[in-house]
Amino acid sequence: MSAMSPVRLQATEAADQPTVTPALERLYRGFEEELLVPLWTEIGDLMPVNPRSRAVPHRWEWGSLLRLAEQAGEIVPVGRGGERRAIALANPSLGGRPFATPTLWAAIQYLMPGEDAPEHRHTQHAFRFVVEGSGVWTVVGGDPVPMNRGDFLPQAGWNWHAHHNATEQPMAWIDGLDIPLQYLTEAQFFEPGRDELSHAERTTPERSRSERLWGHPGLRPLGAPAPSPGSPLLSYKWEFTDRALTDQLALEEQGYGGTVEPGHAAVRYANPHDGSDVLPTIRAELHRVVRGAETAPVRETGSSVYQVFDGSGVVTVGDHSWSVTRGDLFVVPSWEPLSVRSEAGATDSDSGALDLFRFSDAPVFAALHLHRTQKDS
Amino acid sequence: MSAMSPVRLQATEAADQPTVTPALERLYRGFEEELLVPLWTEIGDLMPVNPRSRAVPHRWEWGSLLRLAEQAGEIVPVGRGGERRAIALANPSLGGRPFATPTLWAAIQYLMPGEDAPEHRHTQHAFRFVVEGSGVWTVVGGDPVPMNRGDFLPQAGWNWHAHHNATEQPMAWIDGLDIPLQYLTEAQFFEPGRDELSHAERTTPERSRSERLWGHPGLRPLGAPAPSPGSPLLSYKWEFTDRALTDQLALEEQGYGGTVEPGHAAVRYANPHDGSDVLPTIRAELHRVVRGAETAPVRETGSSVYQVFDGSGVVTVGDHSWSVTRGDLFVVPSWEPLSVRSEAGATDSDSGALDLFRFSDAPVFAALHLHRTQKDS
Amino acid sequence: MSAMSPVRLQATEAADQPTVTPALERLYRGFEEELLVPLWTEIGDLMPVNPRSRAVPHRWEWGSLLRLAEQAGEIVPVGRGGERRAIALANPSLGGRPFATPTLWAAIQYLMPGEDAPEHRHTQHAFRFVVEGSGVWTVVGGDPVPMNRGDFLPQAGWNWHAHHNATEQPMAWIDGLDIPLQYLTEAQFFEPGRDELSHAERTTPERSRSERLWGHPGLRPLGAPAPSPGSPLLSYKWEFTDRALTDQLALEEQGYGGTVEPGHAAVRYANPHDGSDVLPTIRAELHRVVRGAETAPVRETGSSVYQVFDGSGVVTVGDHSWSVTRGDLFVVPSWEPLSVRSEAGATDSDSGALDLFRFSDAPVFAALHLHRTQKDS
Amino acid sequence: MSAMSPVRLQATEAADQPTVTPALERLYRGFEEELLVPLWTEIGDLMPVNPRSRAVPHRWEWGSLLRLAEQAGEIVPVGRGGERRAIALANPSLGGRPFATPTLWAAIQYLMPGEDAPEHRHTQHAFRFVVEGSGVWTVVGGDPVPMNRGDFLPQAGWNWHAHHNATEQPMAWIDGLDIPLQYLTEAQFFEPGRDELSHAERTTPERSRSERLWGHPGLRPLGAPAPSPGSPLLSYKWEFTDRALTDQLALEEQGYGGTVEPGHAAVRYANPHDGSDVLPTIRAELHRVVRGAETAPVRETGSSVYQVFDGSGVVTVGDHSWSVTRGDLFVVPSWEPLSVRSEAGATDSDSGALDLFRFSDAPVFAALHLHRTQKDS
Repeated sequence: MSAMSPVRLQATEAADQPTVTPALERLYRGFEEELLVPLWTEIGDLMPVNPRSRAVPHRWEWGSLLRLAEQAGEIVPVGRGGERRAIALANPSLGGRPFATPTLWAAIQYLMPGEDAPEHRHTQHAFRFVVEGSGVWTVVGGDPVPMNRGDFLPQAGWNWHAHHNATEQPMAWIDGLDIPLQYLTEAQFFEPGRDELSHAERTTPERSRSERLWGHPGLRPLGAPAPSPGSPLLSYKWEFTDRALTDQLALEEQGYGGTVEPGHAAVRYANPHDGSDVLPTIRAELHRVVRGAETAPVRETGSSVYQVFDGSGVVTVGDHSWSVTRGDLFVVPSWEPLSVRSEAGATDSDSGALDLFRFSDAPVFAALHLHRTQKDS
Repeated sequence: MSAMSPVRLQATEAADQPTVTPALERLYRGFEEELLVPLWTEIGDLMPVNPRSRAVPHRWEWGSLLRLAEQAGEIVPVGRGGERRAIALANPSLGGRPFATPTLWAAIQYLMPGEDAPEHRHTQHAFRFVVEGSGVWTVVGGDPVPMNRGDFLPQAGWNWHAHHNATEQPMAWIDGLDIPLQYLTEAQFFEPGRDELSHAERTTPERSRSERLWGHPGLRPLGAPAPSPGSPLLSYKWEFTDRALTDQLALEEQGYGGTVEPGHAAVRYANPHDGSDVLPTIRAELHRVVRGAETAPVRETGSSVYQVFDGSGVVTVGDHSWSVTRGDLFVVPSWEPLSVRSEAGATDSDSGALDLFRFSDAPVFAALHLHRTQKDS
Repeated sequence: MSAMSPVRLQATEAADQPTVTPALERLYRGFEEELLVPLWTEIGDLMPVNPRSRAVPHRWEWGSLLRLAEQAGEIVPVGRGGERRAIALANPSLGGRPFATPTLWAAIQYLMPGEDAPEHRHTQHAFRFVVEGSGVWTVVGGDPVPMNRGDFLPQAGWNWHAHHNATEQPMAWIDGLDIPLQYLTEAQFFEPGRDELSHAERTTPERSRSERLWGHPGLRPLGAPAPSPGSPLLSYKWEFTDRALTDQLALEEQGYGGTVEPGHAAVRYANPHDGSDVLPTIRAELHRVVRGAETAPVRETGSSVYQVFDGSGVVTVGDHSWSVTRGDLFVVPSWEPLSVRSEAGATDSDSGALDLFRFSDAPVFAALHLHRTQKDS
Repeated sequence: MSAMSPVRLQATEAADQPTVTPALERLYRGFEEELLVPLWTEIGDLMPVNPRSRAVPHRWEWGSLLRLAEQAGEIVPVGRGGERRAIALANPSLGGRPFATPTLWAAIQYLMPGEDAPEHRHTQHAFRFVVEGSGVWTVVGGDPVPMNRGDFLPQAGWNWHAHHNATEQPMAWIDGLDIPLQYLTEAQFFEPGRDELSHAERTTPERSRSERLWGHPGLRPLGAPAPSPGSPLLSYKWEFTDRALTDQLALEEQGYGGTVEPGHAAVRYANPHDGSDVLPTIRAELHRVVRGAETAPVRETGSSVYQVFDGSGVVTVGDHSWSVTRGDLFVVPSWEPLSVRSEAGATDSDSGALDLFRFSDAPVFAALHLHRTQKDS
């Protein structure tokens, strides 16, 4: 019965629609009964001239996030059920779902002193990025990886992982995952792990074993086969990222280029095994814009989430513009032009550059031959 | 104001949820206000142990589709606005949207005698498959490609294309596209083309130029560079598909294997340039199950749409089971086990095999390292 | 002792050489003693401005080859020791070694009525091409493959293979291998096989099983995994090659291009599994030049061997020029310009095109990023 | 005339050869006349059961090489003609040619105080490795790259390069190239460059621009496209190599593996752009064997050259065995088993490990599907 069908078709008098007649109404009732929808009522939404994102540009202030995470730390236990004390950004126009963009999940995760987040694994590709704090170790496949300000920790799908806070301080960081993409494409598997980590896994080394094997520039360990998919290097320490950006800007100053555009240095986190993106579905980068510089507006298919790692500035995404400062997060929907200006914030006297951590779904678009970029002039 | 927020959080007394307290309620109101959603209320839906598709298995009967398409042919004009007289399958549990599965579009397209479907191009990857009829030519990049029963015509994104019916008969066929995937990931571009095809484009050759260049087994034309992405071969004629399946079954009979399993032959349509899938986001295959044979149940991540090309049988997808006959379509959601039995239909005395055309989103899953298969025993 | 050293250094008074002094002579004796050679005496030979091949252009007449092969058929047995009755082209300037070019082996192979060439396998990649005759089956991995005029039969390294002549006529064909390349790089393994083929392997089907699985345009058998390396298709029958070339020339005539240059059609034999060259070290092509047409001179790094499959013409390679007719073979050394003119031969009234089979070491150059082409104007 | 033919065929009475008869002799004269060689007289040499290298294992003592290079420094000018003061290892069984192995060139290069080696470029892929000394800068594509003990400097074909010695000391290092391979396959191009470097190119920075862009672990510069082929990183400094090896041995000691075998750490120099070998035809590695450890014998297709970077030990290659110490070079022909024992040398009291630099033609074998390894038990 059409009355029960989820399909609802409304004949309208719009110029590009068929003339409303009793025959058309009968046809539409027939479509509803047979679970059919004609292209002509949907094409404008489904096949737009340019991507028109269902997501909107939005900014979250770090202060508010952190304050709520702290409250959650006090009243919500970590453990089976929730598994993680993670609080996700919900794009205002995505129906209240915990989707920062249609494909990306971004959350603040919070661990209290002495707490463990239990071991599990899932097909969702994930990473952590630390805007402040230290004291937590992520244990990936038995390898404890320290987390400190500026570190980027990728973790490809289906690796066992847990976290433990070895200090007397709580710690917060951001998690990025492809949860929405895998939710939409329906590719997810999940498995809970052991109840407790071993003694060796609860050690707190300064460098993970993955870094000792894979963290040397241009050098591949002959005795350690690279896992697939995703990067075998489990931490990209801030020390190296900072130095790479400093080097690029120095080269530019000396007249040799090396930056993306004047005053704008950037590195991509890469898989040392094959140079590809660190995760099959997520690209991650760190951008540095020197004080006073402004980036040219760029549109890109696919969406991004940014977090201000340091400095202050003004970000413009399409029709939106915000002042941002350390820790603030914002999203750039597909094909919305983005431009960034680095400038001293209202409340700080910081003279440094604006450092922006970025992650996006670009590898998905590249793999499917759907990636496009356009510089707006 | 939380009152305006799309986020709605309901504290519940479930065993795996935090204890409901005034503090928790305040926390949830804070989350709503700041557009945040905690993982612990969502993990069961977002990160299931196995993929739990929002789509359900469903079958559409060809007779009903064709009848409605014929009615549409009489009362709905082809042209600017609708561009195509295409009527899409709407999976019963996907909210009435024209999505056969979360990633795939499947529609019946219908063209009246002498009609043209106007030229356009889009990033969505598409194909046509002809279950019956003939008389229409698809013009892809200026190359008229005939359409006849059993032919498979891939057409990678961003190629100009139009259709013209050169006969005195209407014609119907099915279209497959990745419209839902590109809708969800927001990658779409669309451009209308010229108002009329040239005289040369309205010719009706028996073979397209693409077939004359690329349709010879194992032979690559040195003077014709392959376009990217997608197959340079614009038609896979039934004659060859049928012969390949016949050959496989003959080899099996002679004791040499070559089939997928006993009584089950299958070919994948492949890009002759590099052996990859014909389209970056769509895999297409033709399966033949001999009368009396039954395929072993298989689960796969990702979803598929099938059309019965010939013969009759019984299809079981998860808890659903249907008798199917020529032209019927059905969908297999992610991770639902599928099994097919070939048997004579109620109304026919056909002694032949059950031929099933299939298309799926498998290349997406393969590219993102998310493909899994499981044989249920 | 220097007297025993293979190194011999001669100080000379040439302008680009060090002044001859007693000190230099002492130095050279020291080099000889320690097995050292200075770059300055060798650079002209080792690092020329352009490749200067040690091979020279040369043509072999088919009539003479065939006559000698027939004589060998009468007096030289096939069997252990020789394994094959194969007689190889020896480039005049490669020291009398059986090397058609520095990397390629080309031989005429001859099998008497009822004879078998014993089973063996080797890492050398090989193929057969049939300029005339029929009646022999090559058995590759248990699959009997018929050989008829115009067929191209690739066979990647390390596959077991044997031949048997099932007719009452002797048969000849050409073999191409990468024997010189593997000799120079020292990569060879060889293993003798069983003494006799099984009854099933001595059958004489018209199509090999490989053709029944892989010989359908753009269709991949789902139940038959592709071996690696090299093509899973063991015969490229003349019927398809001829049709592909005919199609290209017809397209050109209709104004659609598709040929390499006017009057010059060409196909490359490709691996249907991935579109790559049929063999990891050998590229094979069939070129058709219509009567009266002439190809533009082209230089290429790497070397080629050609055989006239049909027609007559004049071939120019560097400073050499020959009339060629059916069966004649010639070699094109690295960077020598080649041009071909199709014209009626002195002794025939053939009105057809000049068909040239070609094989080369191009995949080696492509894989090592050493491939260059230059059109001489 | 057969008398002039380079082909010489000798009928013999060997068991696997045709019976010597007048007919056979006539046949052989016919072969000679027509420039043909039968397989049956050559198969044992051309198609051996295992690779039998024309090269032999050999060791060169660094002291002797350096002494002769110093003498060459005094009496042989660098400059047009020689271009480089490079003195190459000549394998004793390769006819006195400057070929360390059939595919690899290894030379000691020597530059006097203030000298320049002129700019040129060539298709041969090259690298430098510094066993001792410092003070020379290699200028690759305008980028001055310092050379110090332990540094590895790859330089892919067709890049402009020159050297200048900025100090008051002479300096020596080793060059590795694929000169023999390109000589045999005839792929070489060479072009002389400018007569003098610019002022900027004669600067002496501590780090090259390539290192500042590409020398950060796992980080790719977004503004600097990678050249192709070969590594964009022009120096792999000893500091990082040493640390990587130290890390591997520490992991092994802590029970986590990471080494190739007990007491044997190793890294491969990798292209940071795609993880491939640093050069299309040359693989380079650094192996560290702790004092007292011995590596298991391994055979590999393809050949290698080793240089002792530090420590002492005993090397066994097939039937040869030598004591080696800092700077000594030795070659391992194809399929000869190699084993290394680390032990204190006769003349030193060094307590450290044996560090071995290695380069090989393995990428060639991998690209052509000809790579094989075998552990002898």
